[in-house]
Amino acid sequence: MDPEEFRAAGHALIDWIADHRLAADQRPVLAQVEPGEIRAGFPTSPPDTPISFDALTALLEERVVPGLTEVQHPMHFGWFPSNASLASVLGDIASGGLGNLGISWESSPALTEVEEVMCDWMRQLVGLSDRWHGTIHDTASTTCLVALLVARERATGLEQNSGGLQAVDSPLMVYTTAEAHSSVAKAALLAGYGWDNIRTVDIDPQTRAMVPASLEAAMAEDLSAGRIPSAVVASVGTTGTTAFDPVDAIADVVERSTSTPWIHVDAAMAGTAMLLPECRELWHGVERADSITWNPHKWMGTILDCSLFYVRNGTELESVMSTNPSYLQSTADGAVTQYRDWGIPLGRRFRSLKLWFQLELEGIEAIQTRIRRDLDNARWLEGEIESEDGWSVIAPVALQTICVRHVPPGFTSEQLDDHTLRWVRAINDSGAAYLTPARIETPDRLGSWAVRISVGVENTERHHLVALWKLMREAATSSLS
Amino acid sequence: MDPEEFRAAGHALIDWIADHRLAADQRPVLAQVEPGEIRAGFPTSPPDTPISFDALTALLEERVVPGLTEVQHPMHFGWFPSNASLASVLGDIASGGLGNLGISWESSPALTEVEEVMCDWMRQLVGLSDRWHGTIHDTASTTCLVALLVARERATGLEQNSGGLQAVDSPLMVYTTAEAHSSVAKAALLAGYGWDNIRTVDIDPQTRAMVPASLEAAMAEDLSAGRIPSAVVASVGTTGTTAFDPVDAIADVVERSTSTPWIHVDAAMAGTAMLLPECRELWHGVERADSITWNPHKWMGTILDCSLFYVRNGTELESVMSTNPSYLQSTADGAVTQYRDWGIPLGRRFRSLKLWFQLELEGIEAIQTRIRRDLDNARWLEGEIESEDGWSVIAPVALQTICVRHVPPGFTSEQLDDHTLRWVRAINDSGAAYLTPARIETPDRLGSWAVRISVGVENTERHHLVALWKLMREAATSSLS
Repeated sequence: MDPEEFRAAGHALIDWIADHRLAADQRPVLAQVEPGEIRAGFPTSPPDTPISFDALTALLEERVVPGLTEVQHPMHFGWFPSNASLASVLGDIASGGLGNLGISWESSPALTEVEEVMCDWMRQLVGLSDRWHGTIHDTASTTCLVALLVARERATGLEQNSGGLQAVDSPLMVYTTAEAHSSVAKAALLAGYGWDNIRTVDIDPQTRAMVPASLEAAMAEDLSAGRIPSAVVASVGTTGTTAFDPVDAIADVVERSTSTPWIHVDAAMAGTAMLLPECRELWHGVERADSITWNPHKWMGTILDCSLFYVRNGTELESVMSTNPSYLQSTADGAVTQYRDWGIPLGRRFRSLKLWFQLELEGIEAIQTRIRRDLDNARWLEGEIESEDGWSVIAPVALQTICVRHVPPGFTSEQLDDHTLRWVRAINDSGAAYLTPARIETPDRLGSWAVRISVGVENTERHHLVALWKLMREAATSSLS
Repeated sequence: MDPEEFRAAGHALIDWIADHRLAADQRPVLAQVEPGEIRAGFPTSPPDTPISFDALTALLEERVVPGLTEVQHPMHFGWFPSNASLASVLGDIASGGLGNLGISWESSPALTEVEEVMCDWMRQLVGLSDRWHGTIHDTASTTCLVALLVARERATGLEQNSGGLQAVDSPLMVYTTAEAHSSVAKAALLAGYGWDNIRTVDIDPQTRAMVPASLEAAMAEDLSAGRIPSAVVASVGTTGTTAFDPVDAIADVVERSTSTPWIHVDAAMAGTAMLLPECRELWHGVERADSITWNPHKWMGTILDCSLFYVRNGTELESVMSTNPSYLQSTADGAVTQYRDWGIPLGRRFRSLKLWFQLELEGIEAIQTRIRRDLDNARWLEGEIESEDGWSVIAPVALQTICVRHVPPGFTSEQLDDHTLRWVRAINDSGAAYLTPARIETPDRLGSWAVRISVGVENTERHHLVALWKLMREAATSSLS
């Protein structure tokens, strides 16, 4: 395809996307398809001959669109706000169009240096000091793995360069809570720590945050048994209920210990809130961590994938991740950042453009205003739910996630779980809205399933929450009839 | 930014990209900037107020374009062909515009199932049997890490779910050659094997491919010493010289052994050649491997990032990678593929669209024709170089990579290296063309540096090679004067 053909097709595609976005709220939120249905719409073998762009657009509508769950729909309250701001989409389009390649500074000086600038701008925007140096990864799953790898090597004096993890006699320990994202355990397993060496530290049953005294006791017990505390993963906004592990108190525990575990702060979703100065108390002590990750590709709205990863000590990271084959060496080495040594992949996209475009075209004030709107909306819905008989908000609403149950009188735990899953599935299956059922054990031990309402889609306004709250009450009533 | 603003800006951006691509050959290949120069063009703090799209485009030209190394330039012969076909760019634009989210089948059935279809189409197009199941990762660095993690767990009976790698007494061994990509050693270190447990198997000094008898001897020695052969990484097209490790003979060695190491085939660059039936003899035996990776985002031209990863046994992969938190469960579970369990990240982009768009809009025949053109061009240049006094091609040209030296009579090794680096840097610094200097030790032990010419940029035609060959002779002559 030559540039003139691209120009013609590109214009048509831009119109198609604009029209698709304009109609987002006309489509069901949850894709109304059965397993295998989208696959069955495609031929089993690749095409022999090319087709026109118009013909492909028709196929896109026919074969693909029915299988899209519309996370940009204003009635999407599932998982987390996975916004895809159109300003950042433009930056992503520029990245693809330029077709640059990040494998070394020399392969695209701009790709490296604009990433440095954007990571630094974002650092300032969430109020971190200039001791932090950042890079962009795909997801917080990957950054957690990277953090636990660096932690492993710090605890063993870079043993990877000799006998590896098997050469280390004393078991290396990782501390987190049961509320941490599933990627934390996955990262620990992939890094080789082993399930037995992941300590699930107690949480406070009300706040659902890590109890520092329990961390201290677990670390002390491990140390006295000859085990090495290697990493503490603090969740700053847990996935289930946006609970905030107390980073400052955790850092105190680490400081008092004779061991020096790496403190990784996982603020994947909640990091966006730190764009608001009034929210920063929630991660108080974050300057004392070793690494921080947060994802502009969630609530802030930078198009996936854009996970920021900050470290205080880039040298430790580079010593674990670096490679330097002759074909990647250049005369600039030593004077420049080589981001391949800051993560797992060698080849990197020009991801910083989508941050730059979003910041320049939307402006930070508009982003802050939108986030404050979402916090207000969540507080409004929390109040409505709390004041309604039979309904309860089962965890503190620190940000924009509300966890609820509707508890009919006299229900057993089992009946309650059936009821919860029935009403939430009725809403989700209808396509009118989407909420996430999740297991959240509460101190009353009544029911294990609850429903998470994650507020924050770019186009979600108060009237959408009013509509949702009506849907919820209707669905709960129907479930009982 | 609302969809109508996006429409207006998007049209302007498409035009900007088309114009930028049309002028690719008018810009220097290597960015003509100093370290820090691009960074210095940006303010040190983020902007307070938004700007117009026109103003941003002007900044893009002013601040970013000078820092782009133009890998789409027809005189780019560095590293590998990092093509970014405009048909696939359209698919990437559609992916961003849709703003879908892959975290489970339910979060976007189309994202999952179109990926299944595209991986299957691509499987057929390179002649693999239907025993292979594929997924799309970012890069071959990541897929190699994933392969070595699965290998580690297969060798230890999924020890990650108990004591982890530290609980395994017998050292786990990885086998590859010194010619393997730097990401192989990096993956082994990150997976915890340790440098001492990476066996660098001998290569044939002429073909630069792994010697199966040396692999067999190394594995036998390890087994008799109580060490466990866990993984063999076979390079199908090495980075330096596109040497082909003999996969079939390697599989024979593994079959004769009492151990069962995982065989990972790294065909990152050369996989594209397998789109041509006449090239498939080069990876003969590939059906006997456990995993294969190849990157359409290189020579084939799918926009970065698109690294295909195929396994014969998806269950083994899933057992190492899977997580199943309650908030990701749905009634479709069990009936669908959950790609989050096929790799490291949870959140995934709709990457298959860029493959689909490229296959539909370009057509496989046009892609095959282009690859055959590149093979012809490389053979032509090889012939020219071989027939010129003082010049030599120092490794077999299996595909499109030509490794050369210009050897003035009577030069010592040191003089030769100086000369080689001088003439290649003169070309690169001029911006007229780009070639990669690389260390390649040859049996004559004369000189350690050589120059790699990687043919295969989408717009590189014979006349560009004619021009390159003229530049090379001129630069070598100048270097001596």
